[in-house]
Amino acid sequence: MKNQSRIMKQISFFVEADKLKSVFRQSRLIGENRKENDAEHSWHISLMALILSEYAVQPLDSLRVLKMLLIHDLVEIEAGDILVYDSEGRKNQETKEREAAEKTFGLLPNEQKEELKLLWEEFESQQTAEAKFARAIDRLQPLILNYFSEGQTWLEHKPGLQKVLTVNRIIEDGSPKLWEFAQALIKESAEKGYLE
Amino acid sequence: MKNQSRIMKQISFFVEADKLKSVFRQSRLIGENRKENDAEHSWHISLMALILSEYAVQPLDSLRVLKMLLIHDLVEIEAGDILVYDSEGRKNQETKEREAAEKTFGLLPNEQKEELKLLWEEFESQQTAEAKFARAIDRLQPLILNYFSEGQTWLEHKPGLQKVLTVNRIIEDGSPKLWEFAQALIKESAEKGYLE
Repeated sequence: MKNQSRIMKQISFFVEADKLKSVFRQSRLIGENRKENDAEHSWHISLMALILSEYAVQPLDSLRVLKMLLIHDLVEIEAGDILVYDSEGRKNQETKEREAAEKTFGLLPNEQKEELKLLWEEFESQQTAEAKFARAIDRLQPLILNYFSEGQTWLEHKPGLQKVLTVNRIIEDGSPKLWEFAQALIKESAEKGYLE
Repeated sequence: MKNQSRIMKQISFFVEADKLKSVFRQSRLIGENRKENDAEHSWHISLMALILSEYAVQPLDSLRVLKMLLIHDLVEIEAGDILVYDSEGRKNQETKEREAAEKTFGLLPNEQKEELKLLWEEFESQQTAEAKFARAIDRLQPLILNYFSEGQTWLEHKPGLQKVLTVNRIIEDGSPKLWEFAQALIKESAEKGYLE
């Protein structure tokens, strides 16, 4: 592996990325009791983005959406995952994630590091249609896991109907149609007792 | 959720796809003893394909490569995973996977089912540059996991150096440069005793 320093940088990034499979989220798999990890989640939302692109507010650059979804959770290897309903915990998270982006993407050759940082920043700043749609899918997925596992995470953390509606309203920015669907799912969850 | 039959078909596909997180492969995570599942693997290879596209034999349609990598393992929910070195087990696998594709993709609205089946067939028949590159990445990833976990799977299944070289030679079709790298990795593994 002499004189292969470029590819070795890329490989070291994949070795680091492997750790995302051990960063656990609050959501649980449908029909299984264990928590989902970030790598599985990133795959699931990428698949969903492919299938649901028709519900975006405008035609999108699907490749950019997928790139954002595939890389945006990598900062959690260093910074950890914070529950979406934990307002307090999320305050310091931004600084930690910014440092993590520098470190994790920094394993790559420089121009690839810059490309991934830009994609991550695009996702975080939520200004483009692609970033908004990516976020909508990222938020819709745990709602689906929760609904089909009879509210496992909601019954554990008890965020309450209003908070679930408020926190997930951001789905509307990426897709009013998916937000309409998500609201129906959330309200039905409350009716079924999955959510207090 | 009345009159939402199209979106409900798509959601039922995501609920089925969730099961890919419980289809385990032979590869083990680096630095962890547990086996990798197909969802994590699909995410990892999608990320790798993004970063390694420069090594393809020609400029590729990256979106199509990603689509193939994201969906190609879904047939294993029904058909199961077969070790790449298990020649006997792989014989009946093709029929089982074809039936599985029909069933799993068949949950989607018809034109989306057809699109995913075509992508899966493109990946399986290995005729296009995109399919060849996708396969190269799909094969390179477990080599990396094995190398960096000191040959865990190889020491367990003992395929032997020659078989590992023969079975993975297909990487060359998608990327001679990545095959050159993979060969160095395999030979170094043999020297280090990760592979007999």
